[in-house]
Amino acid sequence: MHELITSKTNEKIKQAVRVRDSAKARREEGLFFAEGARLCVDAAGSTPVKTLFYTEKAAQKYGAELTLLAEKSEEAFLVSGAAAERLNDTFSPQGIFCVCKTLDKSVNIDIIYRNSKLIALENIQDPANLGAVIRTAEALGVGGAVLCGCCDVYNPKAQRAAMGSLLRLPIVTVDDLPAALTQLAERGFTTLSSTPDASAQDITQTDLGEKTVCVIGNEGNGVTEATMNCCQKRVRVPMRGRAESLNAAMAAAIIMWELMR
Amino acid sequence: MHELITSKTNEKIKQAVRVRDSAKARREEGLFFAEGARLCVDAAGSTPVKTLFYTEKAAQKYGAELTLLAEKSEEAFLVSGAAAERLNDTFSPQGIFCVCKTLDKSVNIDIIYRNSKLIALENIQDPANLGAVIRTAEALGVGGAVLCGCCDVYNPKAQRAAMGSLLRLPIVTVDDLPAALTQLAERGFTTLSSTPDASAQDITQTDLGEKTVCVIGNEGNGVTEATMNCCQKRVRVPMRGRAESLNAAMAAAIIMWELMR
Repeated sequence: MHELITSKTNEKIKQAVRVRDSAKARREEGLFFAEGARLCVDAAGSTPVKTLFYTEKAAQKYGAELTLLAEKSEEAFLVSGAAAERLNDTFSPQGIFCVCKTLDKSVNIDIIYRNSKLIALENIQDPANLGAVIRTAEALGVGGAVLCGCCDVYNPKAQRAAMGSLLRLPIVTVDDLPAALTQLAERGFTTLSSTPDASAQDITQTDLGEKTVCVIGNEGNGVTEATMNCCQKRVRVPMRGRAESLNAAMAAAIIMWELMR
Repeated sequence: MHELITSKTNEKIKQAVRVRDSAKARREEGLFFAEGARLCVDAAGSTPVKTLFYTEKAAQKYGAELTLLAEKSEEAFLVSGAAAERLNDTFSPQGIFCVCKTLDKSVNIDIIYRNSKLIALENIQDPANLGAVIRTAEALGVGGAVLCGCCDVYNPKAQRAAMGSLLRLPIVTVDDLPAALTQLAERGFTTLSSTPDASAQDITQTDLGEKTVCVIGNEGNGVTEATMNCCQKRVRVPMRGRAESLNAAMAAAIIMWELMR
């Protein structure tokens, strides 16, 4: 039986809430927050768990998951009352929460260039979009992602939308995307930039190459000019209807699908 | 100059908030709420506007849009203070709000069967998903949508995600999806059901037919058995990664893309 925490001002609870709610705290402490049986088990499969919290009700419903999580965690606590309520971040909380160690994403581009199909995400600001795109990338078999200027991958909304894929897909975070794309081009990659612009090549009519990286831009503004200029080709998803454009996540799904088709 | 409303208990304000926040009120009053210059102008292009509200700040910034909207509206009011705050439903409101008349979506399937590519959405529950899928359908040139058991198309979140496409794309709402699919099959449509099930046909290896309707199911549970059983084929988006599945909106985007490709 694990120690019980009931107070919302307990230091362990405060730390969990801090890394849940603040990107700065996540960065400084090297920790992030995960909620729910499935996401916590996914996280535990990818990264060390510092602290596990669970409610009595969760213990009854998710015995197997909690046994596994307790084994993988440095410490575990039963929570109830105000402490449990403070941890709840979703409409239907399952009563399982983990504080996990962040993975180092700021690594050399070498770790992903062996994969032949990559995406680069530039300034994606909505955490749910980021999570959904990375989940789709993994599902379709994209080999990795280069991130530049995006929202925090450890944002709880991003983690929930990603269903663990943000922890599994090889991801490199860079400060200078044109430089990273140039490095990839030097290693034989075709570098593509996606745009709704009618002057770009129809993606179904474009030779996408054997080793390819395609940049997806910000939700409102698309790919920056500097990045667009350093890419070898500009591609577009052809549109027929009156809708002005596809949203960024949907365009990304179709582009990744064509990349892998 | 239009009459100024400052009180949040004004009857016009109360009606706007009521149809914004309640699907039941929207149904009973035959009205829905739209916010923002672009969405209001889109709505005014598709359906009569009953009431326009705008702030002084909006009048300075969106003069052209407001002139057009005021012409198309039965009545228009300047709002300030508590009245304007009560109408705000987004993080960065533009200060333009319309109460519009709903279109009759419960019409005969005849209005869409002349189009050759259709989607059917079954029990899509998240308004943002519904809006994003319909926006994508319009952008890719899908001819219309059959909806069964989905959330309200006039939900403000659905309208925002749809960018006007929920008002433009031919949409039929039905109570009995298997019956509607049978009607479409009798008119020469190939009826497809999408599923992540590995036993379904890879969509890239399937003859999708000239006239085709494909069913996309609920976010968590997929297409119902009754609907699946009445479709001629089951298709899947082939997946390679470890992610358990694509989310419903992303799968829908890829399926519609293949339908139109």
